[in-house]
Amino acid sequence: MALDEALSQLLAMAQPLDGEESLATFDADGRVLAQDIVSALQVPPQDNSSMDGYAVRCADAQTPGVRLRVTQRIAAGHQGVALHAGEAARIFTGAPIPSGADAVLMQEDTVVFPGADPQTVPEVQVQVAPQPGQWIRRSGEDVKQGATVLQRGERLHPASLGLAASIGLAHLRVSRKPRVALFSTGDELVMPGDVAPENMPAGAIYNSNRFFLRALLHRLGCEVSDLGIVPDRRDTTIAALKSAADYHDLILTSGGVSVGEEDHIKPSVESLGALNLWQIGMKPGKPFAYGWVQRDSASQAVSKAVSDRAHFIGLPGNPVSSYVTFLLLVRPFILRLQGANQIQPVRLTLPAHFDLPKVDRRREFLRVRRNAQGGLDLFPNQSSGVLTSAVWGDGLLDNPAGRTIQKGDAVSYLSFADLLS
Amino acid sequence: MALDEALSQLLAMAQPLDGEESLATFDADGRVLAQDIVSALQVPPQDNSSMDGYAVRCADAQTPGVRLRVTQRIAAGHQGVALHAGEAARIFTGAPIPSGADAVLMQEDTVVFPGADPQTVPEVQVQVAPQPGQWIRRSGEDVKQGATVLQRGERLHPASLGLAASIGLAHLRVSRKPRVALFSTGDELVMPGDVAPENMPAGAIYNSNRFFLRALLHRLGCEVSDLGIVPDRRDTTIAALKSAADYHDLILTSGGVSVGEEDHIKPSVESLGALNLWQIGMKPGKPFAYGWVQRDSASQAVSKAVSDRAHFIGLPGNPVSSYVTFLLLVRPFILRLQGANQIQPVRLTLPAHFDLPKVDRRREFLRVRRNAQGGLDLFPNQSSGVLTSAVWGDGLLDNPAGRTIQKGDAVSYLSFADLLS
Repeated sequence: MALDEALSQLLAMAQPLDGEESLATFDADGRVLAQDIVSALQVPPQDNSSMDGYAVRCADAQTPGVRLRVTQRIAAGHQGVALHAGEAARIFTGAPIPSGADAVLMQEDTVVFPGADPQTVPEVQVQVAPQPGQWIRRSGEDVKQGATVLQRGERLHPASLGLAASIGLAHLRVSRKPRVALFSTGDELVMPGDVAPENMPAGAIYNSNRFFLRALLHRLGCEVSDLGIVPDRRDTTIAALKSAADYHDLILTSGGVSVGEEDHIKPSVESLGALNLWQIGMKPGKPFAYGWVQRDSASQAVSKAVSDRAHFIGLPGNPVSSYVTFLLLVRPFILRLQGANQIQPVRLTLPAHFDLPKVDRRREFLRVRRNAQGGLDLFPNQSSGVLTSAVWGDGLLDNPAGRTIQKGDAVSYLSFADLLS
Repeated sequence: MALDEALSQLLAMAQPLDGEESLATFDADGRVLAQDIVSALQVPPQDNSSMDGYAVRCADAQTPGVRLRVTQRIAAGHQGVALHAGEAARIFTGAPIPSGADAVLMQEDTVVFPGADPQTVPEVQVQVAPQPGQWIRRSGEDVKQGATVLQRGERLHPASLGLAASIGLAHLRVSRKPRVALFSTGDELVMPGDVAPENMPAGAIYNSNRFFLRALLHRLGCEVSDLGIVPDRRDTTIAALKSAADYHDLILTSGGVSVGEEDHIKPSVESLGALNLWQIGMKPGKPFAYGWVQRDSASQAVSKAVSDRAHFIGLPGNPVSSYVTFLLLVRPFILRLQGANQIQPVRLTLPAHFDLPKVDRRREFLRVRRNAQGGLDLFPNQSSGVLTSAVWGDGLLDNPAGRTIQKGDAVSYLSFADLLS
């Protein structure tokens, strides 16, 4: 199965979750908006000065050398009074333009003559005739009243929180966190901390996938239940799946989905729902499983879940395969569960700074890193067991099946910074 | 002052903080390593199969058609026994290669003949003569014993957590979180939620900077104390600064650092330490202040702080100026406080898909967005008040002073995904 086909089948199953919540804008970073945000006001609310200087009437200031009487002083947050002919207002950045004024003189373009005594107002001398509107930021320049400033399905980030706050919103409606149950299978897996490196039994390896999967899920705004390593027995696997399905939207596992592997995942999921094992034409990451587990109807009533099923996704066990298939398939799936509009990062076309003479018959996602010259370097060992490649790299080069790469070729690049955000 | 000069002066003041902590590897995403991580073991620990198939001795399998007796079965996590001449071992992905074997036949390249009865072992027929080492992943292929796999000063992300776990580390030493006190000044500022949009007094605006600054600080792994809006009075400002300095490493404020602005920040900080107002040759974001506040010696003794000062940084008040100067100056400063090695993102060279005919005498950071054609589009309104530009954009185009841009020009691009991670 082609990767694009796998992704489109997967997304077809990802109905946005029922349930929204109202969050303090301060706490909504990374979440997906469940409402369009329409502004009840203009930002800025009034025409205001973008410089420290003098607000004037252009008609009074056409002749360099002319002097205007400085009859008021307007700081940010304060309101001036109407400006009459022959008058100027001392004004500071952000302060509202008084009525009558139609330009601001930068203080550097003026000469000030103090009043002869404290009762006499100072005068400001125009050096350069102003253009109408100069140094004035218009009301509504950033946001117009009634405009939709953020759309349902946008994923919030720091600037969008600032934008929502700028129109007075202390709370935002966002879609709820997907609830994900994570577990691993495999008799060879040992948890770090449980057995010291020097005491590892032959054939045993440390479970690394759980660590990056948990971090990746948290970055996507998921609530994660870590069910640990489920023993390789049919009854325990079924019990774990059943209890996980009642509360969670997605059950995610790694390992145990290759054809011929010795495990109980496939028959266990099938006994509770359905499971499809896919062989995806990609490297790393061929084996991938999608299925579902039926929810207990009593628990469904209690949790008020709309869906009577929990999704099941089985990732390959090799660390790099697991990492890459998560980023390319599970990430968009989880963003879609939250109702996100943009679920795939924009690709970049960059020059390869290496040769790849060997053809692979699968579409390959090579771990690469941008260099200071703006090109991509290749991690030397692209084996799917070598997690170091994903630590060293800062992104993936998407190389079509059967294609060699020569130094200087333009290639398609996906950055980890995008894929991890 | 040039931006590069400002950054280098700022970084010269950013001594890494005293203090480290030991964290569960699960909880260390985004933190900065305070130790080199050296592997106590090989990953993988033993030579193992990268396919489901049959482990064989190449010397026995040079003639297609030859049959070998399948005398053992090795699953992942289990250890086989020595393979003798004429024998093969049924083997699964990840399972250790038995001694004597030097290649794995993919199961697709074999034909199996079951034994005549349950007491007779099955035989496997070789179809294609194997190359020595084929489908074997070597011990230490990912990590060699004694190798430094992660370096002090690396910022951890999901794959590096996985790598640390793969060598058995359940805990990691990281530098402590910088403690940042955040406050705003300005009589015109109103907190969202305190006053409804329809009741906003003339001249008032909502405080938006606090929202994105808090989120940006959290993304950088800081512990944030939000001191709110400090009233524009000298005594309250001094009291707020004094109490913030005792516990925090950095006091961050926005607004009140332009020349001629009406506020109490400058004299208040100066009365407690020192403050330099910089005019940086960049747009947006000219005014910027760096200084320090002396710590009370008693509180210094209690908190065991090595430094007798808290840093003070004043950002410009305009939202986009505040946002951009945070990303370009405060972000590297905070990463350096944590001892991070890489504090600046790698730039990309991408084609502009727009014209910018107007020259600016300052170096300009334009809000742009990558398009599907791999080029950059420009947000139409680049005013420093228009926060929408930073929501719409996905990065900054770094345009040198005095330079126009023509469609197709190669320009320097910094992605928000990099700058926000």
